[in-house]
Amino acid sequence: MKNTAVLLLSVPMCLARKGVVAAISQFLVAHRGSVLHSDDHLDCGRDLFLSRLEWDLDGFDIPISDFEHHFRPLADRFLINYHLALTDYRPRMAILVSGYDHCLADLLYRQNTGELACDIAIVISNHPAARPLAEFYQVPFHLLTRPQDKRESEREMLELFGQDVDLIVLARYMQILGPEFVAQYLLRMINIHHSFLPAFVGAKPYHRAFERGVKLIGATSHYVTAALDEGPIIEQDVARVSHRDTVEEMLRKGRDLEKVVLSRAVRWHLENRILVCQNKTVVFV
Amino acid sequence: MKNTAVLLLSVPMCLARKGVVAAISQFLVAHRGSVLHSDDHLDCGRDLFLSRLEWDLDGFDIPISDFEHHFRPLADRFLINYHLALTDYRPRMAILVSGYDHCLADLLYRQNTGELACDIAIVISNHPAARPLAEFYQVPFHLLTRPQDKRESEREMLELFGQDVDLIVLARYMQILGPEFVAQYLLRMINIHHSFLPAFVGAKPYHRAFERGVKLIGATSHYVTAALDEGPIIEQDVARVSHRDTVEEMLRKGRDLEKVVLSRAVRWHLENRILVCQNKTVVFV
Amino acid sequence: MKNTAVLLLSVPMCLARKGVVAAISQFLVAHRGSVLHSDDHLDCGRDLFLSRLEWDLDGFDIPISDFEHHFRPLADRFLINYHLALTDYRPRMAILVSGYDHCLADLLYRQNTGELACDIAIVISNHPAARPLAEFYQVPFHLLTRPQDKRESEREMLELFGQDVDLIVLARYMQILGPEFVAQYLLRMINIHHSFLPAFVGAKPYHRAFERGVKLIGATSHYVTAALDEGPIIEQDVARVSHRDTVEEMLRKGRDLEKVVLSRAVRWHLENRILVCQNKTVVFV
Amino acid sequence: MKNTAVLLLSVPMCLARKGVVAAISQFLVAHRGSVLHSDDHLDCGRDLFLSRLEWDLDGFDIPISDFEHHFRPLADRFLINYHLALTDYRPRMAILVSGYDHCLADLLYRQNTGELACDIAIVISNHPAARPLAEFYQVPFHLLTRPQDKRESEREMLELFGQDVDLIVLARYMQILGPEFVAQYLLRMINIHHSFLPAFVGAKPYHRAFERGVKLIGATSHYVTAALDEGPIIEQDVARVSHRDTVEEMLRKGRDLEKVVLSRAVRWHLENRILVCQNKTVVFV
Repeated sequence: MKNTAVLLLSVPMCLARKGVVAAISQFLVAHRGSVLHSDDHLDCGRDLFLSRLEWDLDGFDIPISDFEHHFRPLADRFLINYHLALTDYRPRMAILVSGYDHCLADLLYRQNTGELACDIAIVISNHPAARPLAEFYQVPFHLLTRPQDKRESEREMLELFGQDVDLIVLARYMQILGPEFVAQYLLRMINIHHSFLPAFVGAKPYHRAFERGVKLIGATSHYVTAALDEGPIIEQDVARVSHRDTVEEMLRKGRDLEKVVLSRAVRWHLENRILVCQNKTVVFV
Repeated sequence: MKNTAVLLLSVPMCLARKGVVAAISQFLVAHRGSVLHSDDHLDCGRDLFLSRLEWDLDGFDIPISDFEHHFRPLADRFLINYHLALTDYRPRMAILVSGYDHCLADLLYRQNTGELACDIAIVISNHPAARPLAEFYQVPFHLLTRPQDKRESEREMLELFGQDVDLIVLARYMQILGPEFVAQYLLRMINIHHSFLPAFVGAKPYHRAFERGVKLIGATSHYVTAALDEGPIIEQDVARVSHRDTVEEMLRKGRDLEKVVLSRAVRWHLENRILVCQNKTVVFV
Repeated sequence: MKNTAVLLLSVPMCLARKGVVAAISQFLVAHRGSVLHSDDHLDCGRDLFLSRLEWDLDGFDIPISDFEHHFRPLADRFLINYHLALTDYRPRMAILVSGYDHCLADLLYRQNTGELACDIAIVISNHPAARPLAEFYQVPFHLLTRPQDKRESEREMLELFGQDVDLIVLARYMQILGPEFVAQYLLRMINIHHSFLPAFVGAKPYHRAFERGVKLIGATSHYVTAALDEGPIIEQDVARVSHRDTVEEMLRKGRDLEKVVLSRAVRWHLENRILVCQNKTVVFV
Repeated sequence: MKNTAVLLLSVPMCLARKGVVAAISQFLVAHRGSVLHSDDHLDCGRDLFLSRLEWDLDGFDIPISDFEHHFRPLADRFLINYHLALTDYRPRMAILVSGYDHCLADLLYRQNTGELACDIAIVISNHPAARPLAEFYQVPFHLLTRPQDKRESEREMLELFGQDVDLIVLARYMQILGPEFVAQYLLRMINIHHSFLPAFVGAKPYHRAFERGVKLIGATSHYVTAALDEGPIIEQDVARVSHRDTVEEMLRKGRDLEKVVLSRAVRWHLENRILVCQNKTVVFV
């Protein structure tokens, strides 16, 4: 079990140039924090310096609960916008699913074998079909009381989550969530869309891909925003198809894509590797 | 040098089921035509049987110029829609190019080394830059007289082509061609579009891909139809990008994609491997 | 549920040229068998014509149990070596697994959702860990009695299989099977090897890939033969790695490869798409 | 034209932990050097901290020719092993080629269009075929006087290079170079091998890939060392093949791989993105 801290930060370029890296490195060295990974990105278009730093907490001489207090002067001096995460904290994840359960099965398996460093707080569905799978992995399952009432369902979910959920994963959840719900979990809710966005936004992308005669199909994981399928893209991948592939075969190939593309996004989020800059992601891998 | 014939055909499914394969095979056997490759596809959605047959002309006991005469009764009986091509015929290709010459350089090299079985009749451009490259490969080069006059340029090109051009390749030709021009070379004109269609139809796709923050960029080769970037797709491929890639780096990665995706489409067309069914291609590879 | 028959066949080229396609097509037409898919391959190096034919049994006027009787004269005339399979027969599959259960979990899920058209007769392991997963999917699980005794274990397995198992899948089974065992299931036993064969034959391929500093890792599914990791390759795929990937991360990326590469091979085998020609596969997809 | 400096460095981990990043950052800030890119890697297996730093020389207040003098105390304190490169220096590249000229044509085109920031000092071949291509791009071409005498040819080349060549590219040069020659250009000579190493070391890899029945073919670019095809791998890529692909078609698909895989390695080397650590590369991209 790693005992490390991760700092995700952004700094206005003009200030970054005045030595923010030197200052932060100096700060960590002074407190005996040994850097394990660091990765930077200068986003020239937006005049921001972005960085992810991971350091060893063994030997770090500030109690991590006091980090804010010690780091504040530096943050103020360089206008550092930052997020601190501790590797030994296990985020709590909720999974929403509808009829197709391949992404759910995949996430449950990965979590169970330790590939995803989180706890699964709850699986929620508008179908009872996913219950046995959740129970096999000893994860609480909740069937929405009135799934056809979207507003009521959202209220029900928010109540279930309370303050207890760090990340929501839409694992082929086929309902569009309302703006208030989305706003509460902004950049904390990941969806898998079964197309290579921005191609085939919306419903039935494989059918439309078949109609258009594309030679590759894709899947896209992204943070959910108020605009449908337009949130910051985290990951995409594609698979080759040909005239021999029916819609059913595209659905089958697509399932393998969706599982991999969604699980990568979830893992990167859990490992605090993603910074969002306007509507784009910087993924430090 | 191969001495073979290729038959591309489509047959209504209801008639195909009554034994069109048996009948054609029988016909070839009867005339001592040894089949080298055959590939079929049942397009259930459109109720068509599609096929590509290649057979050896050595020993075939019908003079190929009389093929039509001998095959006609069979074609009439099964309502076979067919196209016969001879492998020893070298199609004549015209290449249209604007400022970017990477696809042109690639096609000239491939033709020169025998990878593309065709003659290059002419290279036409609205820029003089491509002339030395064409001349190095001893291919006629024509600079459009009044490139800013689209209608006049199209007339000029049609005159240059006469009856002498079998295939037009738009190797990053940045002018939209008018419907009359397109109609004359329907399914005989291939374009490379520098995006993963149907994403980013139209101008500046790499810039828009950068803005959207996609994680893969693509290229698409397709037959040109009257509707911009909506013709039957022949081939597509993608390359991975990340937040580190500027638009310039996307352009660079894209060039490698465009060359490969265009040259595959051109080769398949020249080898008579493509059947178009409504707005989709069947590529027999 | 499809009611079709598949014929996989090979014919000496010299005889094939005398009209085997015409003769077989004629035979099927005569008996009202409507061909749904046909795919051919001329393997010039080995002078064989290989083919896969699938036709509709609705309306086929020979009882399929009499097929042999009616087809025999044709087979004799052209020296056709053939295998007939009925789509409505569900092959029975045994899965052997050791400590890593990701391929097992994947196969069970795919079978359960109908992606693999087979019954899973039994899961056998030298570890008890896989039992709950097998039981969840209601598949018989057998723990080898004396796993450290290889000869005894093989005898135990053969007894369990009886005449009842059509296909054995080694889903990361970490024991090398003896030649007698292999001989009994020749071309009916599929292994997943966690490297891009022929690179890294044998043990600990990811560690050796890491040591060598390769930039892609791979997985290979193949039929098991007496020579370790040298059987006919069915499918391969790769994933990109970099200096950032530790052996553990290669193992993680490799698991996704292994699942996909093994399940494709199993599906193709179950769908009667594979012909083996000397030590190579022809996969009709 | 960029006016930047790149520092590639390695530091023993135990010293790196004592604040090497802070010290170097501080050094650059003190001299008004604004960092544009930085990328780190902790190679735990070898206890080394590796880094690539690029900073703006506009405003940097040390004349770059005095860098060594100013940086030395820091380097001594942390035992920093470093290489400084200036972006405005154009390395001089020699290309060696035999009968196949596709990689040569590709490199010449890329250099000509500015994709490779170098000058091509000379093209050397044991065949005259490449001369026109070199001349078209106005690059000196030298035909080896006695190509069958390997020792003499190596002496001839070394004389031609003098002190004037920074990088040698073996663009499908089919002679094995002797250890003395290799030693002189260690980590400054890049080869393209037409297989997915370590599979198919040595001659005729596509033929052997065909014989083995692999489903993917590959290409590998690597630094040349005394052991054949065993130098540090810089880049690899693969393309899908099937039973339909003859050796000739593998050769064709392979050419596209080789061009891309070699040109990436050359570009990364020219951009000072590669550090070699024992027999593995760290590629900062």
